[in-house]
Amino acid sequence: MRIDVITLFPELFAGPLQTGLLGKALAKQIAHINLVNPRDFTTDKHRKVDDEPYGGGVGMVMKPEPIFAAIESLPVLQRREIILMTPQGQPMTQSLFRQLSADYDQLVLICGRYEGVDERVMHLVTREVSLGDFVLTGGEIPALALIDGVVRLQPGTVGKRESVVADSFEDGLLDYPHYTRPAEFRGLKVPEVLLSGHHGAIARWRRQQQIERTRQRRPDLLQQWQLSSDSHDECP
Amino acid sequence: MRIDVITLFPELFAGPLQTGLLGKALAKQIAHINLVNPRDFTTDKHRKVDDEPYGGGVGMVMKPEPIFAAIESLPVLQRREIILMTPQGQPMTQSLFRQLSADYDQLVLICGRYEGVDERVMHLVTREVSLGDFVLTGGEIPALALIDGVVRLQPGTVGKRESVVADSFEDGLLDYPHYTRPAEFRGLKVPEVLLSGHHGAIARWRRQQQIERTRQRRPDLLQQWQLSSDSHDECP
Repeated sequence: MRIDVITLFPELFAGPLQTGLLGKALAKQIAHINLVNPRDFTTDKHRKVDDEPYGGGVGMVMKPEPIFAAIESLPVLQRREIILMTPQGQPMTQSLFRQLSADYDQLVLICGRYEGVDERVMHLVTREVSLGDFVLTGGEIPALALIDGVVRLQPGTVGKRESVVADSFEDGLLDYPHYTRPAEFRGLKVPEVLLSGHHGAIARWRRQQQIERTRQRRPDLLQQWQLSSDSHDECP
Repeated sequence: MRIDVITLFPELFAGPLQTGLLGKALAKQIAHINLVNPRDFTTDKHRKVDDEPYGGGVGMVMKPEPIFAAIESLPVLQRREIILMTPQGQPMTQSLFRQLSADYDQLVLICGRYEGVDERVMHLVTREVSLGDFVLTGGEIPALALIDGVVRLQPGTVGKRESVVADSFEDGLLDYPHYTRPAEFRGLKVPEVLLSGHHGAIARWRRQQQIERTRQRRPDLLQQWQLSSDSHDECP
């Protein structure tokens, strides 16, 4: 998979893309990240990438020409999606990550700054994605979240020992609690069942914890999970 | 505001914390970010921060002792929140950012890696926050999103010209489209009304665009907004 990132701040990405499991995956060339600065595609002597909004109002707007030029400089792979990172987009979810990871050869991520990008950039954009219902100073951190979540699902990133199957959201429920050594720490003990070696009892306890946690914290997810469990039960 | 980040990968943060509006705010000491590595608080010769899960299963779990020791090494400011970044937490929203920005002197952010942190760390944690319903390789990118969103709301980060009041979500609706020069680009024109200089008409057009966009893309938000508008109308 190839991921092109259109950003005024390519220097922001070095640390996150070189670190931990994502850094290892990129070093193994499981995905290739290409950073492109629209400022390199300006034609005026001040290399201007933003300007005042038509109609007045606060802040600056990213000009359309440098973004068009940056995107048009890229090679075009077969299954390509051009994604604008914006609070106006579809919310980021695990199923979106699965879809982007499986169905595309190339993702072009446009990171807005200031008040946003000129609306005419939408003529290039095939999808808008939002990190959540909040405002950040730019689209770079949302792009990092998308890169991390999508590359993580590419074959070879996560080893068998860290299988993605048991993750939160992969089966529609929150994760169960995890414990490691020591068995007792400052009087706080690991639940007996986890020390029992009884695999059936451990699996039941973990499932029960998943359901109970999801009920307490995210009743919306539990309801969806129950509906989808019911529909599975009805299938022969 | 002081923000302490408990992370196995402090090197991930340098770029994002030095860049753009967030970098400027931190250089102006609007907030102070302190990175703490639990590995520096291990006492064994292998500096081990993770171990196998009790009860079996894939992946590794972050040990409790180095995280306790890292947090206990920190100064304790008066209004302090210890936040675990986890998909099991409360969803990140603009109102959470407002609350954290206004009500606390110190945020301690714990970034999990691998399958997660030992559950006993919850005895220190006062709040769990989730970036969204998806899985990333660690809590560092969620911590960056929280830092960016919260520091952005601290007085002095965003100038008057980039006021936060007109943002998406600040009034419960998505943002309106933005345009800047040129007035025509590749045959794509800026809407006439924005060139009219008629402030009342521009304000009406923008409001209409906000409502229409929110209706099309996020009917859930529109419904909340209508309910809250109704309740405002009932107030004398």
